[in-house]
Amino acid sequence: MLVSALLTSVGINTALCVLFLTFYSILRKQPSYYDVYVPRLLADGTSKRRSHFSLERLIPSAGWVAKAWRISEEELLSSSGLDTLVFMRLITFSLKIFSFAGIIGIFLLLPINCLGTQLEEFDIADLAGNSLDVFTISNVNNGSNRLWIHFSAVYLLTIFTCFLLYYEYKYISSKRISYFYSSKPQPHQFTILVRSIPPSSSSSVSETVESFFKELYPSTYLSHVVIHRTSKIRNLVNEARKLYKRITKLQSDSTQQKRRNVNLVDHYEKKLEDIEENVKLEQSESSLAGEETRAAFVSFNSRYAAGTAFHLRQSVNPTQWITEQAPEPQDVYWPFFSESFMRRWISKLFVIVVCILFTILFLIPVVVVQGLTNLSQLETWFPFLTSILTITFVSQVITGYLPSLILLLFQKMVPPVMEFLSSIQGYISHTDIVKSACNKVLWFTIWNVFFATVFSGSVLSQMFIILDPKEIPAKLAVVVPAQASFFIAYVVTSGWTSISAELFRVIPLIFSLICRPFTKSANDDEFEAPSMPYHKDIPRILLFGLLGMTYFFLAPLILPFLLIYLCLAYIIYQNQFINVYATKYETAGKFWPIVHNSMIFSLVLMHIIAVGIFALKKLPLASTLTFPLPVLTLLFNEYCRKRFLPMFVAYSAESLIKKDRQDQNDATMAEFFEKLVTAYKDPALMPIQYSSNTDSLRRPLVS
Amino acid sequence: MLVSALLTSVGINTALCVLFLTFYSILRKQPSYYDVYVPRLLADGTSKRRSHFSLERLIPSAGWVAKAWRISEEELLSSSGLDTLVFMRLITFSLKIFSFAGIIGIFLLLPINCLGTQLEEFDIADLAGNSLDVFTISNVNNGSNRLWIHFSAVYLLTIFTCFLLYYEYKYISSKRISYFYSSKPQPHQFTILVRSIPPSSSSSVSETVESFFKELYPSTYLSHVVIHRTSKIRNLVNEARKLYKRITKLQSDSTQQKRRNVNLVDHYEKKLEDIEENVKLEQSESSLAGEETRAAFVSFNSRYAAGTAFHLRQSVNPTQWITEQAPEPQDVYWPFFSESFMRRWISKLFVIVVCILFTILFLIPVVVVQGLTNLSQLETWFPFLTSILTITFVSQVITGYLPSLILLLFQKMVPPVMEFLSSIQGYISHTDIVKSACNKVLWFTIWNVFFATVFSGSVLSQMFIILDPKEIPAKLAVVVPAQASFFIAYVVTSGWTSISAELFRVIPLIFSLICRPFTKSANDDEFEAPSMPYHKDIPRILLFGLLGMTYFFLAPLILPFLLIYLCLAYIIYQNQFINVYATKYETAGKFWPIVHNSMIFSLVLMHIIAVGIFALKKLPLASTLTFPLPVLTLLFNEYCRKRFLPMFVAYSAESLIKKDRQDQNDATMAEFFEKLVTAYKDPALMPIQYSSNTDSLRRPLVS
Repeated sequence: MLVSALLTSVGINTALCVLFLTFYSILRKQPSYYDVYVPRLLADGTSKRRSHFSLERLIPSAGWVAKAWRISEEELLSSSGLDTLVFMRLITFSLKIFSFAGIIGIFLLLPINCLGTQLEEFDIADLAGNSLDVFTISNVNNGSNRLWIHFSAVYLLTIFTCFLLYYEYKYISSKRISYFYSSKPQPHQFTILVRSIPPSSSSSVSETVESFFKELYPSTYLSHVVIHRTSKIRNLVNEARKLYKRITKLQSDSTQQKRRNVNLVDHYEKKLEDIEENVKLEQSESSLAGEETRAAFVSFNSRYAAGTAFHLRQSVNPTQWITEQAPEPQDVYWPFFSESFMRRWISKLFVIVVCILFTILFLIPVVVVQGLTNLSQLETWFPFLTSILTITFVSQVITGYLPSLILLLFQKMVPPVMEFLSSIQGYISHTDIVKSACNKVLWFTIWNVFFATVFSGSVLSQMFIILDPKEIPAKLAVVVPAQASFFIAYVVTSGWTSISAELFRVIPLIFSLICRPFTKSANDDEFEAPSMPYHKDIPRILLFGLLGMTYFFLAPLILPFLLIYLCLAYIIYQNQFINVYATKYETAGKFWPIVHNSMIFSLVLMHIIAVGIFALKKLPLASTLTFPLPVLTLLFNEYCRKRFLPMFVAYSAESLIKKDRQDQNDATMAEFFEKLVTAYKDPALMPIQYSSNTDSLRRPLVS
Repeated sequence: MLVSALLTSVGINTALCVLFLTFYSILRKQPSYYDVYVPRLLADGTSKRRSHFSLERLIPSAGWVAKAWRISEEELLSSSGLDTLVFMRLITFSLKIFSFAGIIGIFLLLPINCLGTQLEEFDIADLAGNSLDVFTISNVNNGSNRLWIHFSAVYLLTIFTCFLLYYEYKYISSKRISYFYSSKPQPHQFTILVRSIPPSSSSSVSETVESFFKELYPSTYLSHVVIHRTSKIRNLVNEARKLYKRITKLQSDSTQQKRRNVNLVDHYEKKLEDIEENVKLEQSESSLAGEETRAAFVSFNSRYAAGTAFHLRQSVNPTQWITEQAPEPQDVYWPFFSESFMRRWISKLFVIVVCILFTILFLIPVVVVQGLTNLSQLETWFPFLTSILTITFVSQVITGYLPSLILLLFQKMVPPVMEFLSSIQGYISHTDIVKSACNKVLWFTIWNVFFATVFSGSVLSQMFIILDPKEIPAKLAVVVPAQASFFIAYVVTSGWTSISAELFRVIPLIFSLICRPFTKSANDDEFEAPSMPYHKDIPRILLFGLLGMTYFFLAPLILPFLLIYLCLAYIIYQNQFINVYATKYETAGKFWPIVHNSMIFSLVLMHIIAVGIFALKKLPLASTLTFPLPVLTLLFNEYCRKRFLPMFVAYSAESLIKKDRQDQNDATMAEFFEKLVTAYKDPALMPIQYSSNTDSLRRPLVS
């Protein structure tokens, strides 16, 4: 790739970026697009759709950029919670690292690369005519002592990154502790989830739980809620909701068809009443008894008691009475409730196998579909297209943009698929599912974008790389630098454009334009803001982190583009949090260990490539001296695991007891404990009332 | 190797075996050898040295064999504890597996191997003239369908072993639970060890511990003992003990030198008094305050309270207030008390590195020393030996027995070295040290006996095997069967002879013969029986298990020899437990997970070799169909880890609370708690009194 080609790409993408930002600046002020651009404010009730018109609404303004840049951590924490703060810390953390790397890379490594003559002379007169390879380490002459500067740069960046990683981990864990100390009493702090309750022939699950915990913890046990299989009720409730929507739509319809509508409404009303009757029947105690699962939420009268019940193995048999921390009530994922030890274990193994297969085999359909965009292939398949395909512009779009568009669409599939896979793995909470999906998407992305591009051979040859570990550095050293210009272009194309399209909220916009006629009647008050798709966004930023880290000393030219991306991401995410995403549940920073591990992986990958490249560049001493670096980095990681990770798993006895003591003299605690007893109730078991027949309301819910 | 050679070896070793057994039958009845052959009974006071003579004492008898065979599990459990039972279960478990394997191997696989003609025809007329290779799988013709029987045998043995492994794990964990339920209240059940106590400028360690635990657990905290650095006192006490021994020896000496002795005794007495004075000074509180370590034993008033303090992370900072279960008071290993988190972590890493280096580099000195036994080399170095070396018998002994003797002596070094390495790793108890040493010796033995023999190349080439995992099955399939005859001979030579020499207690016998004049005065009442060196004996039996497992379908001829070895081991260990070893401390069966893991490793190794050998024998389908076996075995292992391993780490809340309730109405508990306060006292801090100066007894120990 020539510099001119890169400049063209930068030009186009900058233009697109500015265009999107301008569009956003105008559209965000149109009340009819509030549900797309400020859904959170709409849901909170802060912004109301006002219809009065002003000229200001049509002029793009940049005030929101300055506003987004100025939002302080405290504001973010109070408005969006700790997870959001952690996410923004990830971006600022990346900014810090790549600023440091950028200074070294641009002012030290880049001139050295240009001074080399291994590939070709750097032509200062015809700047745009140079190949991008001139700017990479490949251009440094073999055996040159200048490579020691690259060697030192690798050491320096590793030390700087580890230092920052330690500082961040410490900062975020301290935030986590203070978040806990400042929190109000919450049901999940006093509750554990018990699974694999052993069957008993003489008593129901509820009785078994009660007798077991009353026997063991007579002074601290408070109450329990056995979990039921409610998929049947859930289906009925959904059906009722749909019917209700249809009825309200018919009732609000124009007057022309009123007569026909009245009949229909009557018909639907009757159907709705039947369904509600059914729901009540299913919700009645006698029917529910048969649908008990062998799992229950058990609440205690102190956080410490719940903590001990979680940490200690309860039963002699380790596969029974398995305890785990309860999620927040609104965070519970009710549908897939796998309660037995064996079933959960098998489904976990199954999901792991499926994930690995999915990750490895994902390339095949992509390659096949991309093959279709081959012009001659298309002409053979669809002869009528021949005339269109001869137009240069059309053929350029098809060959140039279609493949990456198809890849992008396929990749859009990945987060939902991984989320689904995580959901059948037996997690109890939405946050656990998202956290696990985040991990899955991360490794999928690293494998499919980085390794698949780098080893652009067959799928099988990729697999064999793992089986031949001692060849890895040499192989990586050959193939990674060769892809430098591709990844520089990738950061610009995929990074800049996608992040500004993210701001532009293309998909919600299209969706909103299509659905507008149907959702018109929806009340703004009922509007629900989306929750942040961490499992989609964290892996993307981490992938760019990996690219920056591995290419930092190979092709420092990538760094300025990466920094622009990160700045854009900072503004846009600070903005799309304040205005778009709502915080429905909170992991209190549990995403950070994923970030930390991914950074360590990037560092070690950089070291492995460095080992290979110094050997390739005929500087074996530098290659040998790089060896201690991955070892020390992994030891550092191990230390961090011991020093910080336990704080992300559970709170300490000291914290729990301290927090319990605070509440001891609090008068509101009695009321809280009263509410706690019913906090973990399956929403499917709540009474529903859509029909206008008030009789059913007067009848007792449980006979 | 020819069958005749094997038969010769079997003959010689059987003769040696019988000779040792006869010797033992006579010598064990001589009172002067009681300290060698029945040290435990001597220490218990069950057997007294009687000097009356009878003819029966000189006639070998076999009654002890029958007696050893008849000892029941209950007797063993009550006399020697659960660890001994677990050790004997290891032997009976191996007996069961290899009886099953033996039936399949001898009656099914062996005839099939002999019927093959790949290597040479089996000559039934000249049985002794056949090569041992005729009896191995190598003799089965390539591509023969008879190999499917070997394939089925591998599946059968795997299923049988997994079934037995599950049953044993279950049995031993149930024994462990009932051992706990039937145990008297013991100090370590109520106590935890706390390390990494954070420094405080205003208070001593003792005050810090007291305030921390009183604050957190006001109702359950009982007492604590801060651990002191006592190496100085320990040295002084040892010196005093030595002096005292010298004095008593002088006093009991013959009357001839009495006058000179009286002066000497006076001199020593004075010195002894000085030392005792010094010890008292060091033991005094003011001096000890400066020697406080940042670790303490903290006792609670219930097992459950101690359990929760152990399971929950106490402090916000996970590297401070680290808790672990306390060992029994007599099991505490006082000397190397590393208390800080970082120091323990670094020493652990250091020990791991040293162990790996020791294991890999151990071969080098052995090979060098073995090289010295090369005849021509010896003649060059020591010309005067030339005449002796020309005698056939001498040269045969030197070339035939010296190398294996040297290897054996080197291997004798391993358990103490590994025990030392484990002791500096930061373990608090003797049992933990022995358990860790057991693991180290096991992997050392497997590597150095099995892999080093199999890949008899250079050390580096061995290391590269790990780095090239996909070649492992093929390489193993080539080299493992080639060493079949070596390992058959090894079981006979090293197995039979060493186990009967074990019975003969060669080293204690030599030691006792040399030291007799000096130890004559020692009183039988003070006699201390040795404790069982599990870290030496468990790895040996597991090594033979590995050999039996891997050669089961390759060379079934190994199995009858292995079974004889196991029967011998059963008799000898049942005997060497009743009479020799005392149980000083108890892990309550914690050795079993090591046995289980080692068996799983053996199974998977067998599968890997099977994959390789079926491919080598041109039966690729069998090779492919073997693949699921290691996967399923590892899944089975993972299940066992979840199902049983937690029971070997700690007792459940249910068990602890149940046991606590039992004691609630026990009147002796008050007395027990009183004793508990001082149970964990460093023996170096006990008052000593060797000198006859009773003044020092009357003076207060602490001023």
